[in-house]
Amino acid sequence: MFKIRFLIAMLALSASLSTAYAWESLPTEAPAPENNPTTAEKVTLGQMLYHDPRLSSTGTVSCASCHNTMLGGEDNRPNSMGVNGQTGGRSAPTVWNSAFNKVQFWDGRANSLEEQAAGPVTNSIEMGMKSWDDVVARLQSMEGYQSAFEKAFGKNAINKDNTTKAIAAYERTLITPNSAYDNYVKGDQTALTAQQIKGMDKMAEVGCTSCHSGPAFNGAGMFQKFPLINNAYFEAQFHLKKDKGLAEVSKNNADENLWKVPTLRNIALTAPYLHNGSINTLEQTVSIMAQLQLGKELKKEEIDDIVAFLNALTGEFPAQKMPRLPATPGTAFN
Amino acid sequence: MFKIRFLIAMLALSASLSTAYAWESLPTEAPAPENNPTTAEKVTLGQMLYHDPRLSSTGTVSCASCHNTMLGGEDNRPNSMGVNGQTGGRSAPTVWNSAFNKVQFWDGRANSLEEQAAGPVTNSIEMGMKSWDDVVARLQSMEGYQSAFEKAFGKNAINKDNTTKAIAAYERTLITPNSAYDNYVKGDQTALTAQQIKGMDKMAEVGCTSCHSGPAFNGAGMFQKFPLINNAYFEAQFHLKKDKGLAEVSKNNADENLWKVPTLRNIALTAPYLHNGSINTLEQTVSIMAQLQLGKELKKEEIDDIVAFLNALTGEFPAQKMPRLPATPGTAFN
Repeated sequence: MFKIRFLIAMLALSASLSTAYAWESLPTEAPAPENNPTTAEKVTLGQMLYHDPRLSSTGTVSCASCHNTMLGGEDNRPNSMGVNGQTGGRSAPTVWNSAFNKVQFWDGRANSLEEQAAGPVTNSIEMGMKSWDDVVARLQSMEGYQSAFEKAFGKNAINKDNTTKAIAAYERTLITPNSAYDNYVKGDQTALTAQQIKGMDKMAEVGCTSCHSGPAFNGAGMFQKFPLINNAYFEAQFHLKKDKGLAEVSKNNADENLWKVPTLRNIALTAPYLHNGSINTLEQTVSIMAQLQLGKELKKEEIDDIVAFLNALTGEFPAQKMPRLPATPGTAFN
Repeated sequence: MFKIRFLIAMLALSASLSTAYAWESLPTEAPAPENNPTTAEKVTLGQMLYHDPRLSSTGTVSCASCHNTMLGGEDNRPNSMGVNGQTGGRSAPTVWNSAFNKVQFWDGRANSLEEQAAGPVTNSIEMGMKSWDDVVARLQSMEGYQSAFEKAFGKNAINKDNTTKAIAAYERTLITPNSAYDNYVKGDQTALTAQQIKGMDKMAEVGCTSCHSGPAFNGAGMFQKFPLINNAYFEAQFHLKKDKGLAEVSKNNADENLWKVPTLRNIALTAPYLHNGSINTLEQTVSIMAQLQLGKELKKEEIDDIVAFLNALTGEFPAQKMPRLPATPGTAFN
């Protein structure tokens, strides 16, 4: 079930100076898989589906409820709230730039945006639909979806596969280019402040970029153990090892506390932090990550510089129209 | 507390033929109160606030959650779902054209959109904020709101009064003109089908328009007892008298089961129906309303004609941009 292509980076605990680190700006387009080329019709349909709370059992939770496109692509909660006020144990990852993740979910158990989109809809504590057959039946009951699916995929095309393809196609448009960092990397020397440049250098020097590498600072599909270094004090406070990460799905001991390296793009907008949303501020997150992953105690000034740089990773959010959702026939969501 | 200007229509149980009924099209602009003239800056701010789930204790419920502007202005649920999965006993009224209601809420207890907007935010089962002071403190913590309020109201303007004024200003733009009915009334003889015209005449003939009058079919602030005629069979099924309506707030026996006459605009989009969302279809709703309010058993053909006409009341929804919401500082919503 889990064809996981992963790579555990051999992290040198004392990272060497890496001023030669190759900083990359964010592409403005995301590659689409061969079997799901991006089209305007799919994106239009996908935006509707993504924002439609009627994809949940109660009619109250859409993809956007937890991955809010009006915000930093998530909900600023430690754990998201699904149908009937239920909560899980993980913090919603941002949808912005998720097209640049090689794997999806915190535990990286999905290999594509399409595969990811299929999950929450029938998760009992997230969107709570009993089955995809029920989702498809509900969509088929709405004339507006019949025509939108037909435009995107042809006749009689309402099914699970096309629903997730449309959502993924829309998500591939959720890219935030032109952050101060990107402008700096592309040659605008004034785009970053002196402190931000110090923070940028510090990130590479300390070793943050060993994992948070590439244009999306997400390690291009890398998995990493977190926490890598045991720390009873933090564990008692934040319960970081309680959730076994990939091992929760693979049932493989070797995968315990193994996580997808998350993007740092727009991180200033996505508090609280870590897989369980246990840390409220970037300052504390940077400090803890350095201690638990790199075995380093950063000075306050170093932390402040890095946080200043992380604030330069907030991009430009594309203007979006508000979708009109198809009319609900005379049925009730309870 | 309740300065309620209301009028109980003396409903003739056997309504006289009223082919002289004056049909009116929907205005394209709603009047604003003197102390809250509509400005572009207020509307921009109001749209942000209206769609911001951080106006709720959990960070999950915005005005739009229950009064969804991507849909028919509500949630197609019998009762809306507030914070932590809680539900009340009433069905969310549509926000579309609510600017043309003289009073707000099902029980009409608010005299303006501004007054209405203040309610749900601190209702424990709706948005669950402990107090407006908490709402104001949260808004003040976000730089993006500081500047948006300043643009709309001037310096240091984040307070309850201005928050509800901005939301109301935005809501006054939520108007759906140019329904088939409007086009017909304005002279396009082809805008309605023959069946819809029959249904329109039937509405006046039967007496629906005794209450559902005026351009928004909402009786221009009229209150009405519902059900007006006792019917044990329906009561057992739909519990229509359980909720005492205005009497729940006024504690006045004379107000028992008294309700604001709701708009019929876009009613094809707002199933399920009645104050408690107990009826799924327009056909059954029309039938029951005729029996309980007018003492008439309509034939199937009459019902179908009226429903055909009600479908002609779906208007044009203005294109809206998706608002960008201000960044959340490093705080968590639990």
